[in-house]
Amino acid sequence: MSLDPREFIRTKRDGRAHEPESLRAFIAACAAREIPDYQASAWLMAAFLRGLDATETDALTQAFLHSGRVFDWSRIGVAADKHSTGGVGDKISLVLAPLVAACGVPVPMVSGRGLGHTGGTLDKLESIPGFRTQLDPARMASQLQDLGVIMVGQGPDLAPADGLFYSLRDVTSTVEFEPFIVSSIVSKKIAEGARALVYDVKCGSGAFMKTRDAARSLATRLVATTRAMGAAASACITDMSWPIGAAVGNALEVTESWRVLRGAHVGGTRELTLALAAEMIRLAGAAPDAAAAVARVTRALDEGAAAEKFLALVSAQGGDAKLLEQGKPLHPAPVVVSIEAERDGVLAACDCFGLGELVVAMGGGRRAKEDDVDPRVGVVMLRERGGEVVRGEAFAQLHMAREDAGLVARARACFTLGDAAPAALPADLVLERVG
Amino acid sequence: MSLDPREFIRTKRDGRAHEPESLRAFIAACAAREIPDYQASAWLMAAFLRGLDATETDALTQAFLHSGRVFDWSRIGVAADKHSTGGVGDKISLVLAPLVAACGVPVPMVSGRGLGHTGGTLDKLESIPGFRTQLDPARMASQLQDLGVIMVGQGPDLAPADGLFYSLRDVTSTVEFEPFIVSSIVSKKIAEGARALVYDVKCGSGAFMKTRDAARSLATRLVATTRAMGAAASACITDMSWPIGAAVGNALEVTESWRVLRGAHVGGTRELTLALAAEMIRLAGAAPDAAAAVARVTRALDEGAAAEKFLALVSAQGGDAKLLEQGKPLHPAPVVVSIEAERDGVLAACDCFGLGELVVAMGGGRRAKEDDVDPRVGVVMLRERGGEVVRGEAFAQLHMAREDAGLVARARACFTLGDAAPAALPADLVLERVG
Repeated sequence: MSLDPREFIRTKRDGRAHEPESLRAFIAACAAREIPDYQASAWLMAAFLRGLDATETDALTQAFLHSGRVFDWSRIGVAADKHSTGGVGDKISLVLAPLVAACGVPVPMVSGRGLGHTGGTLDKLESIPGFRTQLDPARMASQLQDLGVIMVGQGPDLAPADGLFYSLRDVTSTVEFEPFIVSSIVSKKIAEGARALVYDVKCGSGAFMKTRDAARSLATRLVATTRAMGAAASACITDMSWPIGAAVGNALEVTESWRVLRGAHVGGTRELTLALAAEMIRLAGAAPDAAAAVARVTRALDEGAAAEKFLALVSAQGGDAKLLEQGKPLHPAPVVVSIEAERDGVLAACDCFGLGELVVAMGGGRRAKEDDVDPRVGVVMLRERGGEVVRGEAFAQLHMAREDAGLVARARACFTLGDAAPAALPADLVLERVG
Repeated sequence: MSLDPREFIRTKRDGRAHEPESLRAFIAACAAREIPDYQASAWLMAAFLRGLDATETDALTQAFLHSGRVFDWSRIGVAADKHSTGGVGDKISLVLAPLVAACGVPVPMVSGRGLGHTGGTLDKLESIPGFRTQLDPARMASQLQDLGVIMVGQGPDLAPADGLFYSLRDVTSTVEFEPFIVSSIVSKKIAEGARALVYDVKCGSGAFMKTRDAARSLATRLVATTRAMGAAASACITDMSWPIGAAVGNALEVTESWRVLRGAHVGGTRELTLALAAEMIRLAGAAPDAAAAVARVTRALDEGAAAEKFLALVSAQGGDAKLLEQGKPLHPAPVVVSIEAERDGVLAACDCFGLGELVVAMGGGRRAKEDDVDPRVGVVMLRERGGEVVRGEAFAQLHMAREDAGLVARARACFTLGDAAPAALPADLVLERVG
């Protein structure tokens, strides 16, 4: 390798742009362990503080992408997927993936586990007894061919350089940097073989992006970089200042998802799923325009095709589909406590971040990658945002592993009761569309 | 250890100042290998780009200092030393150390090897057959007690954390950062037990500091940090746009030093040595004022006390003092070629950096730490700066291991012949004093 890592680091240290070819060579040499971690991490900090432009972000994405296996599903169809930046109660993927597959668009969905205050699709799926989230590539191909949908965890051969750099970012405090976030997300989605990508960029108290400007900037760059990789893309900036739907917690969210698949109008979950699904099939070329796309996905949901697809997916991946069909709780929590209003009023605001952290504290999420999660615990809202409550009325339930008055008090403190519904209540969870 | 390295890195990444206690804890944990190199190097880059203030520089210096052995020579006297930022033909230490010791001020001098275009005192000393630059602490103490001077290399127990960070700086392109340079220099000098320190900050084409402003800034910070460690300090900013004295190259510089010790008035070497020596004994309290100090060191040089001390030092450390006394060349080069003027004129300018690099190319210096040096090779000036030459006249000699016309041409190209002496020729190598 002719690249001098010291010269490469100096280039970024001094605020100059990398040639795409050198950037790819540096990442490849780091992934091949020819360049040690201490040089990679000095570069990470230099890039964090000096910035990476769009061309460099694209080159970084390509370097991550080509560090491992790249799936090609073109013989099956134009594969579509969605990525969410992570929210509280965000079970959208569970309804969305079978719904889009039911519309004839293959969905090779690779998801992650929960970390910190947001949950992860894999943890939710694994609360279905028997569900396997690791499939080998041959099995992925046959299931995607036969069923049109897979929902799996990331194998070690998918963008391994991103995995290496992600670990380093975590320990060097260089996580929250847009070009790193973008290249990490896009490289994995392109590697899984998706050619039509919708990004759900969350914004608000429960999201990583607290402001609309930060969310818009990330959404714009995700779309641009995805297009630079040759795939279709768009993004929705969605509200994350209130939990999505009614349930937060692994098994509770699966139960809610199943209800939505069976036709229930759970506020937030149904609308957001339909909006994102419509965008996915439009981008994949399975609907001529947005209106036709919305009509098609709504029909697939309401006529039960999505529910049927979900049961087939669960069965195919070893899960107990019968348990779902019977409509029973998957993992009932031993203690269920009501959260009651301390005064008359309306549910004005929620500290979504605090609520997510509370679920982690109950055992339903992870502080460290190695932690186990308790599928039983979580929160179920009994009233929607802005809803009126009278003093003493239960507006939410806490599903707990054991009695804990401190956690109940924390849960209550996450909600603000006001005298009237907040003026700026969003009419739709989709605040803005990008791309 | 309660310090969270990610939080610590984030503090500097975001441009905030470290608490001195956290900075010391971080360095100590890195030195103890409790914090891995990849976190140390991310911090190095964050500090390089965000800056370290005076308080942080002092804390870093203390952390390096206390990572290893700290010598205390107070029972012998107020020990003095000089540090030079490195120049071409800079053999000052060889005359200075015995001269100051001859004035009754102990000199526990710890020096380095040459790297890049500048030479190192250890390499020069080792061109004296038999000279040993590694002494154990007991031997250092007895020799300093008996003779008043030691000239040794840095042992592994002197500021080991600085050694670790220096290696990381080298591979992460974070070398050229004033707070790192200052803490590295000062911690080692304080650890060797010096309580009166003079800094020779070089400025010009042959120096690391190319501008007077950069040199002044470094000099000011060196003095301030040394004082913060409780030692006396001052600095001289000295001209490095022409080689110091006449010789460049290891054995050639020892020969010149011996000539100066014997009373020769070699332009530059004698004056600069006297200026720095006077400052050292004044700071150490061995002379009431600058004038008295100059008088004292001049007498010690002219009366032969310094030469006698040097011979005793060479003998004490195993070197062949007789060879020096006989005045023979230490390591005669097999090929000596004259560099002749191609026109009538004056020696107007020298590319000192180029000349230093030429000596490295001849084998007299190191490109990498592992390289051996050839003591024989170098350059000897036959005319001083600004001196008149006629066409065909030899103004310098190249001492070479073998014939090489390319190197001769390179040597000639380092010198510019003009029509008159440059107007801005410094009258004195000491351009400015700081502190």
